[in-house]
Amino acid sequence: MEADFLLNSETGKVLYDFVKSAPVIDYHNHLSLTDIAGNRRFSDVYDLWIQPDPYKHRAMRMCGVEERYITGDGTKEEKFIKWCETIPKLLGNPLYHWSMMELDTIFSITEIPNGNNAERLYVACNKYLKENDITVNTLLERFGTELVCPCASLIDDITAFQNNRKLAPSLRGDDIVNLSTEFVKKLATLTEIEIKDLQTLKYAVGIRLDFFAQCGCRFSDHALDNGFQFYEDDGKNEKRFKELLENRLNKTEQEKLSSYMLVFLGEEYAKRRFVMQLHIGAERYTSTRLRSSVGAAGGFAGIGNSLDVRSLTRFLDVLDCKEHRLPKTVLFTLNPADNALISVLSGSYARDGEAGLITQGPAWWWCDHKQGILEMLENAAVFGVLSNFVGMTTDSRSLLSFVRHDYFRRILCNWIGQKAESGEFCCEISMLKDLVYKMCYENAKEACAQKEDSYAFSR
Amino acid sequence: MEADFLLNSETGKVLYDFVKSAPVIDYHNHLSLTDIAGNRRFSDVYDLWIQPDPYKHRAMRMCGVEERYITGDGTKEEKFIKWCETIPKLLGNPLYHWSMMELDTIFSITEIPNGNNAERLYVACNKYLKENDITVNTLLERFGTELVCPCASLIDDITAFQNNRKLAPSLRGDDIVNLSTEFVKKLATLTEIEIKDLQTLKYAVGIRLDFFAQCGCRFSDHALDNGFQFYEDDGKNEKRFKELLENRLNKTEQEKLSSYMLVFLGEEYAKRRFVMQLHIGAERYTSTRLRSSVGAAGGFAGIGNSLDVRSLTRFLDVLDCKEHRLPKTVLFTLNPADNALISVLSGSYARDGEAGLITQGPAWWWCDHKQGILEMLENAAVFGVLSNFVGMTTDSRSLLSFVRHDYFRRILCNWIGQKAESGEFCCEISMLKDLVYKMCYENAKEACAQKEDSYAFSR
Amino acid sequence: MEADFLLNSETGKVLYDFVKSAPVIDYHNHLSLTDIAGNRRFSDVYDLWIQPDPYKHRAMRMCGVEERYITGDGTKEEKFIKWCETIPKLLGNPLYHWSMMELDTIFSITEIPNGNNAERLYVACNKYLKENDITVNTLLERFGTELVCPCASLIDDITAFQNNRKLAPSLRGDDIVNLSTEFVKKLATLTEIEIKDLQTLKYAVGIRLDFFAQCGCRFSDHALDNGFQFYEDDGKNEKRFKELLENRLNKTEQEKLSSYMLVFLGEEYAKRRFVMQLHIGAERYTSTRLRSSVGAAGGFAGIGNSLDVRSLTRFLDVLDCKEHRLPKTVLFTLNPADNALISVLSGSYARDGEAGLITQGPAWWWCDHKQGILEMLENAAVFGVLSNFVGMTTDSRSLLSFVRHDYFRRILCNWIGQKAESGEFCCEISMLKDLVYKMCYENAKEACAQKEDSYAFSR
Repeated sequence: MEADFLLNSETGKVLYDFVKSAPVIDYHNHLSLTDIAGNRRFSDVYDLWIQPDPYKHRAMRMCGVEERYITGDGTKEEKFIKWCETIPKLLGNPLYHWSMMELDTIFSITEIPNGNNAERLYVACNKYLKENDITVNTLLERFGTELVCPCASLIDDITAFQNNRKLAPSLRGDDIVNLSTEFVKKLATLTEIEIKDLQTLKYAVGIRLDFFAQCGCRFSDHALDNGFQFYEDDGKNEKRFKELLENRLNKTEQEKLSSYMLVFLGEEYAKRRFVMQLHIGAERYTSTRLRSSVGAAGGFAGIGNSLDVRSLTRFLDVLDCKEHRLPKTVLFTLNPADNALISVLSGSYARDGEAGLITQGPAWWWCDHKQGILEMLENAAVFGVLSNFVGMTTDSRSLLSFVRHDYFRRILCNWIGQKAESGEFCCEISMLKDLVYKMCYENAKEACAQKEDSYAFSR
Repeated sequence: MEADFLLNSETGKVLYDFVKSAPVIDYHNHLSLTDIAGNRRFSDVYDLWIQPDPYKHRAMRMCGVEERYITGDGTKEEKFIKWCETIPKLLGNPLYHWSMMELDTIFSITEIPNGNNAERLYVACNKYLKENDITVNTLLERFGTELVCPCASLIDDITAFQNNRKLAPSLRGDDIVNLSTEFVKKLATLTEIEIKDLQTLKYAVGIRLDFFAQCGCRFSDHALDNGFQFYEDDGKNEKRFKELLENRLNKTEQEKLSSYMLVFLGEEYAKRRFVMQLHIGAERYTSTRLRSSVGAAGGFAGIGNSLDVRSLTRFLDVLDCKEHRLPKTVLFTLNPADNALISVLSGSYARDGEAGLITQGPAWWWCDHKQGILEMLENAAVFGVLSNFVGMTTDSRSLLSFVRHDYFRRILCNWIGQKAESGEFCCEISMLKDLVYKMCYENAKEACAQKEDSYAFSR
Repeated sequence: MEADFLLNSETGKVLYDFVKSAPVIDYHNHLSLTDIAGNRRFSDVYDLWIQPDPYKHRAMRMCGVEERYITGDGTKEEKFIKWCETIPKLLGNPLYHWSMMELDTIFSITEIPNGNNAERLYVACNKYLKENDITVNTLLERFGTELVCPCASLIDDITAFQNNRKLAPSLRGDDIVNLSTEFVKKLATLTEIEIKDLQTLKYAVGIRLDFFAQCGCRFSDHALDNGFQFYEDDGKNEKRFKELLENRLNKTEQEKLSSYMLVFLGEEYAKRRFVMQLHIGAERYTSTRLRSSVGAAGGFAGIGNSLDVRSLTRFLDVLDCKEHRLPKTVLFTLNPADNALISVLSGSYARDGEAGLITQGPAWWWCDHKQGILEMLENAAVFGVLSNFVGMTTDSRSLLSFVRHDYFRRILCNWIGQKAESGEFCCEISMLKDLVYKMCYENAKEACAQKEDSYAFSR
């Protein structure tokens, strides 16, 4: 990979040189808690490069690769070869760039993989893995991470995060919102609290939230999928919760209870100064066949329709109406058609002394490519305040995805550099350096640093 | 500010030189009728630069400035300083450019304001205001305005516009559409007509419309907010109006009456050759707290969901079905995702001899930045007819916003210049000059010049 | 027209040189079956250039031309002159480029038409037509077409396509989906089958589909207009069909039957390896007046709201759930706001061994301009797989529209060339050549070449 990859302006190069070695804070991803806890060592390139990346599986499917060479009973080598054969077909797709960057960063391989060199590359990579200590920890080191936050459910075992300054959990709150009796039972067991009503439920949730906070958690996350509707509290949620425990709550009623729980959690996040991430607009139900054969996270999700802006604004407003109960919120949209609508909300709620109370998050999931990043940045700039940007995060299942921080930095610096050179970003270079440093590192650090905060957890 | 600010092509510079001094026609804005009537003189830079601009208030809130320094009891100097401290954080936001242009144009200040120079700038600006006669009229002169059209309600006092060739009212028609008993009473008093049914209501509206026409009004304006639904006349609107007068019309029924009034007004506009502006897609209900503390126009509105295209097309069609009853219509969208959908409607209705019967208006409100202007221009070009563009207008509450005409001209000329140099706009330079002149001035002049029209107001 | 028109990068020029003479495959258009069958010879430039192109009619309307000079009783010369007068006003609109290319390609005219040269051009063009044999066939030759596929209804006479290797029908399936008694009667007559229930209907449809296949048909087409809703089979469609035959099926029930027929057809297409084109999102009901005066295809259609993604994904899923019953599908969107949503679906369904099972089609109808093509390409690249692109098609009623293949090739090559030169498309030039060749020709050829397929038509 060229040193100047994606850097086509002199100012962009200067900015990138300034920011490229800034520590990486990845405040939300889906890394395997098991791999992390056990500091897994990788001995086959397939396990490291392909298996944990549904994005790559999806690309192979689009190119007609048989499922047995993707998630089926093919050998690791066969799967590696199929993936290498696929790469040249992906010119234009971010996977082409990422794969190139991943191979270069870990294995110093600068060839474009293809059907001809695949076998050789497989041998070379595995030789490298045999001769070098490539583990979760050495990889985190290599990518210059300062803090990495894999997401965990409230009922997951997060003890591995305790007393670890380089790792913290990011709370995946969906099962708290979309309650099930199974979840309630596990939570009850875990907290040793008899959950019989909303009060005891909330108490138990609070105990776990405090433990998450003690383990360094500063970011929560909720998926507001395609069709998300917000319902204001009608006073009937105690009844609904009772019905849920008795397994007789229908779908619409469950959605009302979900809205109630979302508000409750928003308040709890605000109390603990957690950032609330809202991932909006996925359409996860596409191919029933793929869902049953490769699982819900198999890389075949779609983009949902435009969000119902009234639902989102009402939700935020209900929190905003309670003094200091709207947490710092980061909005992600999977549908780029909603970029403006999302970005402009950063000016719709405010709190004295809190810069960036609402901001748009980095380009997410299928949008996390050069074009998507640029669109997100343009929108955040013109409809919001760029310098409030909370920072890049991978949201990935693959350790190698940390190359995307470098990818983001290159794209950001080039974008700003070009705007500076065209006279659009008219200021001193020092101000541009400050800006990119904030956007690549400092703002995320600040958002995560709230653990030193004097706030006492009150319930 | 550099003379070539935003001009990165030689052809763009040539075009800008050609058009930069063309008179400004601002056919729709929200300038204070009181300030205009009294030719207010400004003695404090805060009153001129910050107070009337909710856009700036919003930006300060996004940067965490305490509300007391925005709309609260802070002193003017304190508020000025807080705004100056905010500006450097806004790199990428149009306010950064506009603020720079505003200070340069009025005060010949070319520094970027910040926390360090704020106090000095405050003194310098106010010294300038003391030593110079900076009033509504001298400002209009300085910005090269030929015609400025602040919006007024049908029941506002617009006598200040009579016999003033440089000012005309732009009719804000929302209270005619969303009728209230209060409005009806005021209209009755003003016109000395007893309004007891739709016929007398329409008669009274007509009288005022004629007076607006006499005062030079050529543009009307309606807000079709997020969720706008159009209902065709079902013959029950007389009954609804009666219920309204008796304060017993519910929301859905009111919306039906609103559709009826909108059609009525469209016809009246067509009769008088008023242009009908439709401002589509604002979501004004976001933070209840901000709404109650800083007012409905406090700068915290959001962008609404995509418009219901059937409602819009039905509305236009109902008018189109009546011979010559679809007025020249300018469509504005706050949601840039609707740009194509809006622009393409310019080809969906037509009238013999009327170029640009339906056109997309300039990038509006939160979209009125470089990116938004370019998107609007691209869409108007490819889906419609660029040379039919009706011209830039600020839609602003601030007198200093007239710098945005210069901003628009630079962006337009640069865009066309680059397209010419890349071979995409392949024609003589004279044709390009004609085009930008039309877009910056002539088309708006023509739309406003209909006062010389021989049309006799018939009712 | 300059040889380098729209080519602003050296790599782009190299790629264009490589691909410009590749044969043209136009797999879906609306050419006149009558003109084709009779190999019409053109003697008046109006008949060739203006009459069959509603796109141009629309542009004239937007510029205020009287309808009598568009579709009315004006002479051909008058209409030609009006169109020439309109062209200079269209700078920025694709018609400006296309008109220029059309005149240059056929008549070697390189002037921009306008009001001054119109009469002279009219004489010159008609002189050319008199002196040269300009017929459907010579035009197809001149444009380098290898295969051209005008669309035909299942009940149209397509015998002209038999034994013609350069022409094949593209099946317009809308009347099979939106059944009418008239259609059923014609189908019954044509197939000599007594259609009394769904089984006999399907049998008759199948017979015609086989005949279409024998005539070379490989592409089908369905319009999913604004508001398209998909209904899963509830077992009541036999009853609905009976009601339809008795002319007593209401609109909602008809929509349910339509969904049923769409699924049936999808399966039939898959059996015969037809590609299924879905043209999504037109809003055809705008001006009632224009519809009645110039017909449904008069060039005044609008863009519909964003598609209901659940309806589309359910439809595809229902087919996908049946083994091998999801045909290769090409998705077109008229609303560019849906580009991402549409493109990303290319990764949501898959079949072993089938590359590009779902892909986004070329920019369609109002979106088929430089900006629209670039947006489509960007989206297909980042959300899908560019090298699976099925190829350009005009979807036009005009023979001269084949210049758009050249237009597309220039835009594509320039886009890729610029990305190559900026380092974003980092690979050998040979790989880029392969890519553009596939996108401009080979992929379409492969999709059409399934006629040699060993598949036996089974019913």
